[in-house]
Amino acid sequence: MLKEIDLSKEISKEEYKKIMENLELKIAELQRKIKKLKIPVIIVFEGWDAAGKGTLINKFILPLDPRDFNVYTMHKPNEEEKMKPFLWRFWTRTPEGGRTAVFDRSWYRKTFEDRVDDLIKENEVEKYYSEINSFERQLYDDGNIIIKFFIHISEKEQKKRLRKLQNNEDTSWRVTEKDWKHNFQYEDYIKVFSEGIKATNTEAAPWIVIEGTDRRYATIKIFKTVIKILEGRINNFEDKSYEDNNYIEKDGFKHNENIDFSNKDKIFLDDEKKLESILDIVDISKCMEKEEYKRELKKYQKRIREIEYKIYKKRLPVIIVYEGWDAAGKGGNIKRVTQNLDPRGYEVVSIAAPNEVEKSHHYLWRFWTKIPKAGHITIFDRSWYGRVLVERIEGFCSEEEWKRAYKEIKEMEENMAAFGGVVLKFWLHIDKDEQLRRFNARLNNPHKVWKITEEDWRNREKWDSYKVAVDEMLKKTNADYAPWTVVEANNKYYARIKVLKKIVETLEERL
Amino acid sequence: MLKEIDLSKEISKEEYKKIMENLELKIAELQRKIKKLKIPVIIVFEGWDAAGKGTLINKFILPLDPRDFNVYTMHKPNEEEKMKPFLWRFWTRTPEGGRTAVFDRSWYRKTFEDRVDDLIKENEVEKYYSEINSFERQLYDDGNIIIKFFIHISEKEQKKRLRKLQNNEDTSWRVTEKDWKHNFQYEDYIKVFSEGIKATNTEAAPWIVIEGTDRRYATIKIFKTVIKILEGRINNFEDKSYEDNNYIEKDGFKHNENIDFSNKDKIFLDDEKKLESILDIVDISKCMEKEEYKRELKKYQKRIREIEYKIYKKRLPVIIVYEGWDAAGKGGNIKRVTQNLDPRGYEVVSIAAPNEVEKSHHYLWRFWTKIPKAGHITIFDRSWYGRVLVERIEGFCSEEEWKRAYKEIKEMEENMAAFGGVVLKFWLHIDKDEQLRRFNARLNNPHKVWKITEEDWRNREKWDSYKVAVDEMLKKTNADYAPWTVVEANNKYYARIKVLKKIVETLEERL
Repeated sequence: MLKEIDLSKEISKEEYKKIMENLELKIAELQRKIKKLKIPVIIVFEGWDAAGKGTLINKFILPLDPRDFNVYTMHKPNEEEKMKPFLWRFWTRTPEGGRTAVFDRSWYRKTFEDRVDDLIKENEVEKYYSEINSFERQLYDDGNIIIKFFIHISEKEQKKRLRKLQNNEDTSWRVTEKDWKHNFQYEDYIKVFSEGIKATNTEAAPWIVIEGTDRRYATIKIFKTVIKILEGRINNFEDKSYEDNNYIEKDGFKHNENIDFSNKDKIFLDDEKKLESILDIVDISKCMEKEEYKRELKKYQKRIREIEYKIYKKRLPVIIVYEGWDAAGKGGNIKRVTQNLDPRGYEVVSIAAPNEVEKSHHYLWRFWTKIPKAGHITIFDRSWYGRVLVERIEGFCSEEEWKRAYKEIKEMEENMAAFGGVVLKFWLHIDKDEQLRRFNARLNNPHKVWKITEEDWRNREKWDSYKVAVDEMLKKTNADYAPWTVVEANNKYYARIKVLKKIVETLEERL
Repeated sequence: MLKEIDLSKEISKEEYKKIMENLELKIAELQRKIKKLKIPVIIVFEGWDAAGKGTLINKFILPLDPRDFNVYTMHKPNEEEKMKPFLWRFWTRTPEGGRTAVFDRSWYRKTFEDRVDDLIKENEVEKYYSEINSFERQLYDDGNIIIKFFIHISEKEQKKRLRKLQNNEDTSWRVTEKDWKHNFQYEDYIKVFSEGIKATNTEAAPWIVIEGTDRRYATIKIFKTVIKILEGRINNFEDKSYEDNNYIEKDGFKHNENIDFSNKDKIFLDDEKKLESILDIVDISKCMEKEEYKRELKKYQKRIREIEYKIYKKRLPVIIVYEGWDAAGKGGNIKRVTQNLDPRGYEVVSIAAPNEVEKSHHYLWRFWTKIPKAGHITIFDRSWYGRVLVERIEGFCSEEEWKRAYKEIKEMEENMAAFGGVVLKFWLHIDKDEQLRRFNARLNNPHKVWKITEEDWRNREKWDSYKVAVDEMLKKTNADYAPWTVVEANNKYYARIKVLKKIVETLEERL
């Protein structure tokens, strides 16, 4: 595929100057529109060593307002990056709405190199590219524009350029043995590049091959491509603007004004009532006596502390998710898990409504920034499941968005698992009467009264809607690599031991 | 000093339980107050190896709401951290208002260890501790509560604990040769610790030595200390609340309602008119012909590109600050500096009003997060000087705050310079007539009309106030390690070459 491309195209200096002036004005104008519409833009530059990526990126960013973009040069991952799943360093760099992220090398680099060096076998390669495709599709679905350039030069041209760099006193240090090795492996690389481009050339994130022999020709093609794609998306966006106007900002979320809230519970129930509820078949009466509890607590807290050191030594990342009804006892449960742990080995992250910066990214972005590094435990007190619970019920996201989220969440958890991580998820389940008892008890306890808010009472009124959402969540996101455990939590002792036991046994098995 | 402390104090299990219950409730309550008042809290745990810092931190955080604190375990700096000034990894972790940051080891660790290993000589030690004192004082002045615990055990106790850890199969791997080396060096360490504690025990950030032999005694002392300090500050805060109520949020800044804006220019001029204005003695008529400009531009752009590679090779960090009147030509000037550079080696950071997250930190925090790593250039299009320019003039901060800022800024720039960084600052100066010409030209150019806003016209009306502020800034923050260059910018060609030349010559001298 790359082999058939005509690399002799060029353009004269005079023509270049004439064309560029207009293109630069145009792209600056489009960038301002993008900013106004809060569209995030990702532009990837991949290609051969010495293909001129640096110069082309520089030409590209010059007309842009420097306030609105970042250039990320992706070297080999550093220590910290190696301790996180492969996509972490890219997820955390995805732009907020209205900004452009330019990647000089990207999530393709490692897969390309490992393929050539045969560290990834032919039968595994699909897995790697499908992980990348999911990543790009998720961002695309969220409104990102993704453009991927492959800067292409011939073997001969590459050799010529490396020689030139090497013969110049000021630049000779830039040419390494690796560059020459890559030139030597040109034939292997061209196969891998062609294979990779084919496997990841999607509507969500198309590849554009740039003939890189003549810099002027390459620059103009890059500009024209970006202009065309941005214009297409802006027009598309403006056509849809009526639809979008139905969403207004409220409570810090996108809020759909058109939903008739009075009818909402009913709608959900009609849709879903045929499903048998997992929550209905839970035996909520399970309990444990205080004496047994104390004994068991001591036993498992000792074991989890030992496990913590082993996790650290073996560099295992562990993610524990707590979800559950208000007042189900998440806080107290988490406390029993962490009470005896070394604080250097774990972190508890409590998830509330997203802040301004978080809201302007993909909703999974703020969770990607918080995942544990290898050897550490992160406990999420509420989590990314908010998307299919509170955001669904309160209309803080569109129906399309929460329906899409099941798949997105599974893909994220798959990424963690593929990296060797353990993912455990708990739903703390109490019944409606027990919740009322606990709300009233909080009201009567001066040390706990701050815990109860009007929102808790409002959520309680929507119990039935939440139940439908919880059921669907448990069914659609349960997986071998990230299982849900429903915890009967009317009795706090029973619930605490059940969670601790599940964590300890799962981790002991993995170690 | 540490030597005279009685390390035999202990407390019984029963007494401990009784006391702790109340202390835990109390501290949880204070944390909620802290959150409401948006006070940032920093708690440092330093001390001997095996002194039990981990366990004590865990005891301390248990009653806290996990949503409101972070524990940072400070290992040796990683690759990225090594490429930033020493305080960078601490500055970037300072808490936002209402949150608590617990540091397990801190900014003291390296200085302590280097002192014992004689990497820092006795006559240099003052410099290190004064850098730390400045850091803590800046945070204190901004409203942070800083509490520093030193967990103290005897040489014998340390040896006993290391042996116990080593003899236990599960924990033996935790004891390293370094731990034994430190135990062997106990006498050296106790001298260094005593010296360091004495040098940095300030009102802004007091040290409290915790007798660590008995964990129960230590835990209670930590709780009582934190409670006492938090209560003191909260009372203090509540007394001052009338004063603070005069500030309301406006335009994303704290805004002082009591300032009579009609009279403001006058006040400033009365105060300051005796100072001779630097801006008045600038020869604004300096200019350069187009032919010469083109020749010079080519020459310096070539040289700066060569310098960029050398900077990278020599791991030199470079900070370039642009300030200047609206329409003074900062953007075009920056473009000429970067036009020929490799985008992998530099970044342009444009500074606008702070966002929600930035506003809840010390105002220098968002600049610390953006400084270049060694080998890279960061160009700031506007900067931390906003504090003594727009924030001063518009009343977005209090008079006390902007007056304090001159020193804070100098200290920050000193940190960069001490790390080996080059700091260059340019004030682009045009006269009032030239600004009017440029505003009008923008209005008449369809590609530039977006650049001009109502705010520009409002700022223009405050020209005289700004002039006073600029003058004071230039005088008070000019330093050998971070010099200001006033650039005559009525003629753009002249201004661009002057800046380029200054950068090139300064860097060539340093390389």
